[in-house]
Amino acid sequence: MIGAIKVISGTAHPELAEAICKCLGGDLCRTTVLRFSNENMLVQINENVREADVFVIQPSCPPVSDGIIELLMTIDALKHASAGRITAVLPYFPYARSDKKDRPRISITARLMADLVQTAGADRILTMNLHSPQVQGFFRIPADQLQAAPILCDYLRQSRDLTNYVLFAGDVGESKDVGHYAARLDLPIAIVYKRRSGDDEVARAR
Amino acid sequence: MIGAIKVISGTAHPELAEAICKCLGGDLCRTTVLRFSNENMLVQINENVREADVFVIQPSCPPVSDGIIELLMTIDALKHASAGRITAVLPYFPYARSDKKDRPRISITARLMADLVQTAGADRILTMNLHSPQVQGFFRIPADQLQAAPILCDYLRQSRDLTNYVLFAGDVGESKDVGHYAARLDLPIAIVYKRRSGDDEVARAR
Amino acid sequence: MIGAIKVISGTAHPELAEAICKCLGGDLCRTTVLRFSNENMLVQINENVREADVFVIQPSCPPVSDGIIELLMTIDALKHASAGRITAVLPYFPYARSDKKDRPRISITARLMADLVQTAGADRILTMNLHSPQVQGFFRIPADQLQAAPILCDYLRQSRDLTNYVLFAGDVGESKDVGHYAARLDLPIAIVYKRRSGDDEVARAR
Amino acid sequence: MIGAIKVISGTAHPELAEAICKCLGGDLCRTTVLRFSNENMLVQINENVREADVFVIQPSCPPVSDGIIELLMTIDALKHASAGRITAVLPYFPYARSDKKDRPRISITARLMADLVQTAGADRILTMNLHSPQVQGFFRIPADQLQAAPILCDYLRQSRDLTNYVLFAGDVGESKDVGHYAARLDLPIAIVYKRRSGDDEVARAR
Amino acid sequence: MIGAIKVISGTAHPELAEAICKCLGGDLCRTTVLRFSNENMLVQINENVREADVFVIQPSCPPVSDGIIELLMTIDALKHASAGRITAVLPYFPYARSDKKDRPRISITARLMADLVQTAGADRILTMNLHSPQVQGFFRIPADQLQAAPILCDYLRQSRDLTNYVLFAGDVGESKDVGHYAARLDLPIAIVYKRRSGDDEVARAR
Amino acid sequence: MIGAIKVISGTAHPELAEAICKCLGGDLCRTTVLRFSNENMLVQINENVREADVFVIQPSCPPVSDGIIELLMTIDALKHASAGRITAVLPYFPYARSDKKDRPRISITARLMADLVQTAGADRILTMNLHSPQVQGFFRIPADQLQAAPILCDYLRQSRDLTNYVLFAGDVGESKDVGHYAARLDLPIAIVYKRRSGDDEVARAR
Repeated sequence: MIGAIKVISGTAHPELAEAICKCLGGDLCRTTVLRFSNENMLVQINENVREADVFVIQPSCPPVSDGIIELLMTIDALKHASAGRITAVLPYFPYARSDKKDRPRISITARLMADLVQTAGADRILTMNLHSPQVQGFFRIPADQLQAAPILCDYLRQSRDLTNYVLFAGDVGESKDVGHYAARLDLPIAIVYKRRSGDDEVARAR
Repeated sequence: MIGAIKVISGTAHPELAEAICKCLGGDLCRTTVLRFSNENMLVQINENVREADVFVIQPSCPPVSDGIIELLMTIDALKHASAGRITAVLPYFPYARSDKKDRPRISITARLMADLVQTAGADRILTMNLHSPQVQGFFRIPADQLQAAPILCDYLRQSRDLTNYVLFAGDVGESKDVGHYAARLDLPIAIVYKRRSGDDEVARAR
Repeated sequence: MIGAIKVISGTAHPELAEAICKCLGGDLCRTTVLRFSNENMLVQINENVREADVFVIQPSCPPVSDGIIELLMTIDALKHASAGRITAVLPYFPYARSDKKDRPRISITARLMADLVQTAGADRILTMNLHSPQVQGFFRIPADQLQAAPILCDYLRQSRDLTNYVLFAGDVGESKDVGHYAARLDLPIAIVYKRRSGDDEVARAR
Repeated sequence: MIGAIKVISGTAHPELAEAICKCLGGDLCRTTVLRFSNENMLVQINENVREADVFVIQPSCPPVSDGIIELLMTIDALKHASAGRITAVLPYFPYARSDKKDRPRISITARLMADLVQTAGADRILTMNLHSPQVQGFFRIPADQLQAAPILCDYLRQSRDLTNYVLFAGDVGESKDVGHYAARLDLPIAIVYKRRSGDDEVARAR
Repeated sequence: MIGAIKVISGTAHPELAEAICKCLGGDLCRTTVLRFSNENMLVQINENVREADVFVIQPSCPPVSDGIIELLMTIDALKHASAGRITAVLPYFPYARSDKKDRPRISITARLMADLVQTAGADRILTMNLHSPQVQGFFRIPADQLQAAPILCDYLRQSRDLTNYVLFAGDVGESKDVGHYAARLDLPIAIVYKRRSGDDEVARAR
Repeated sequence: MIGAIKVISGTAHPELAEAICKCLGGDLCRTTVLRFSNENMLVQINENVREADVFVIQPSCPPVSDGIIELLMTIDALKHASAGRITAVLPYFPYARSDKKDRPRISITARLMADLVQTAGADRILTMNLHSPQVQGFFRIPADQLQAAPILCDYLRQSRDLTNYVLFAGDVGESKDVGHYAARLDLPIAIVYKRRSGDDEVARAR
């Protein structure tokens, strides 16, 4: 029932989508994205996608909100065009850091995004290095999370001499992640314990 | 179970929300909307809204996509803050004109918007003068549609002498709406029959 | 996962279903529809439909309500019989004209019908020439809308000399549709502007 | 949030609805049910029902399918008219006897009906003496099941001398129900053991 | 889209699962079930199940509650591991006898179980000899119900001389089932009419 | 529509429920929990709960699986008994620590639990000190999370002299929580950095 793979690029990062297509050895599925004078967008899929196994590539890049709406419209268009399976490829998942209620009466927006993508019609999510591993529990559709660490560590080892390096966690929350890199690179770690105060995004180490 | 009315203004049109509050004789519910350096927003409700009957006022204004995301985040925050009932007040409903599939493989985005607002957690919608009356069928939650015609017609009659006026429908699609005004104002109508071609938003009368 | 095509005819229009099967070169899937003395119906699928790609053909014909209930029962029986995919083929979609709330406190029944067909278990809808293009937005499952215009225009051109014909829209609401035919047949159009009043289905031109 | 009680009668059994209203000491909520020349119905609620606690009375009576569609349209109209709570009062639940799959590839239509009523927007169901007690498990919304036995037994005891009566179960399936009456009336029971064969609704005792 | 069959055994009845695999001619899919000191379990699927057609075998056996939770966790793990189709094989369906509300304010737990299995992510159910045939109506996903009677009757006929046997229904509720066996074995039946009173699971024949 | 508060205790921790009732100044709502010889449970609510604002208190205590099933059955019974609002009070949320996919092909069971509680019919959740703050994003129904820190800190300050105390995080993952206590008690903290290996629940500091 699911036919050939089709890769669609949103406007967020066409170079990434093209690089992926190059690896896969095919062309991007042609689409049109228009923006009318009232800022409303129109997303049109220009090829038959019936039964196709479609991957929509749209990491969260500025302009962020436009990228999200365009993503949802693309998925919706694909569903109604009878795509066989729709995978949203979101290497940087939108609002991944809004994963908890650290102030009263706010939205856990990463969860909201997961629900919106599912409502639009995605069958699966493909993402990378979520801000916290718990975010994977926000999805009810299968969500594969890729890890960049192996590639990054290989690169670090090949590009420089790591003797006498110390991995540095700028924040207690990052210490677990840094620990994974430390184990992989066999390096010691240091942790800065700081507290964030106010909305000015400035933290104070102590 | 549903307590006092609270009116929340998104950033789309605070003047409208304030004017509404003035009519109702109360103050806007205090909220904070922040925008971080990565363009992600944070919406916080600064008052207790437990059991409250909350109205969120957010017409579709530029920047359109930001306004939609902010609306969805506000509704989500309210739901998790245990608001008793959430009504999205959207005088200009986002993407109301994207109400049909006039090209192959596009999204009927007005329907998508209706689903997104419901997924975020709205219990009701309040809107005005939808682009086509069928759009009201896009909602599964109650959606009240207000009509501006009575107020506009009163204004027209009071502000000028309408003798010898003809109402003019610039498009066959508008002729039905113009007909309502004509009946209310007791004026004749003229209809331009034109055809739109291409994506340049220019139409040709004939 | 989806196997061979099976075509099922409801009792609404067996001749149509047979003509379709003839084109496809196969036989109708055998079913039994009984009606007990208390007017309750029983729909039984008499062939194995596991994994099959089933099309249920049931345009809205008198008796309309019986046809709808029979359709829903057939879809439900197919789902529980493990059909692979169920497509409801509804050339005349039931209640397609009930697409707006032109009186207070009525049902937009075309939307209700879309929801009922989905609740029963249909995966897709195939319909024709909806009363308004917005009705397509009533579906959350893929709904393909076929157009009769090309076939009808070919027929008109072949069967008579169209010189000096004028296409006539009996109602402003029809003028857009008539325009499509006019463009295709290269004929001028005339529009009657009338107003409908009361429930007697009689309109008055003026 | 839920206001005054409103009782609506469908066209199935207006006398019952009026008798109920008489007991409650109020009037029926006014509605209009039209039937157009294409057999499509229109249901309009003629009174404001915002926040009201609405009971729709529509037992399954001939014409059965029309009654079901009318019921669903009424519930849908009420939901979109912002009724506070909608209770479908279905003393004879439609298709209550279609509660099992006693042939291959049929619909368990009582379950389908439960789902349809919920999809249309009912919040609660009120029914009586279901064909089997398991049918109550078909609902996900609260469904109260009233029992007629106490009233019927009182009537039997008052209207005749029951000495020397034997309660007679015409079918093994009825023996449990008859047992309840026997316990309440303190009478012996007899059971006919018969087998049903074919679709002619005729059974043979042995 | 659906690949090879994989059979997974929960801890409820591994011998049954192995016997099934032996018939199918394959091995069980490897899984790990751990139980931590706080009684929480961990279910891990040790093989790739992407696109696989997975059958999870877990009849309701003591410890019953553990078996249910383990089943739900296994289904959930499979769904997020991108299994192609998940069939819960529950020869003894959990809480199958809790199929009606024979006391006020209790749960129809068989229906609840059906919903839980569906929420966890099962696509299909395979079960046997439900306590009442109506229970099949509790499922919205396809649920195949196998019958043991043919195998049991063959066994009885082959293993003993059934002349002068009478089939005995220990309860009116069982008489229908016993009747099916009687018809198949061509034997007479006797029915005990008893009434159950209180919670002590003791019934009294009369 | 929501009436008086009713507090129900599951069998997990009746002393807690009684202590809560004592604070509130009322009695526990009477219930019966039976366990049949086949280990199946029966939960019955012994008081009218129509429209009531019901709180079900059931922290995750051994036997854990029984406690979860009993909780779900209680919620289901309440929903069908027409409770006005059902709040599951789960101070220790079941499987709260299973909040991420730290091995391939496992269930994020805390999310599964959130979905099961919602499927059973809970309207709200009340919990305490979740294992990670992200778990709050697993709920689609409002979930209030209480914090024990203020009470615990008051107790510590009143019961001993904290001069020369150091707060000790036994694990990097705990350091953030410990930081909250440190800020509140104005004490320094120490962090042990350890790595967990294998399934034996033993970690090694380094």
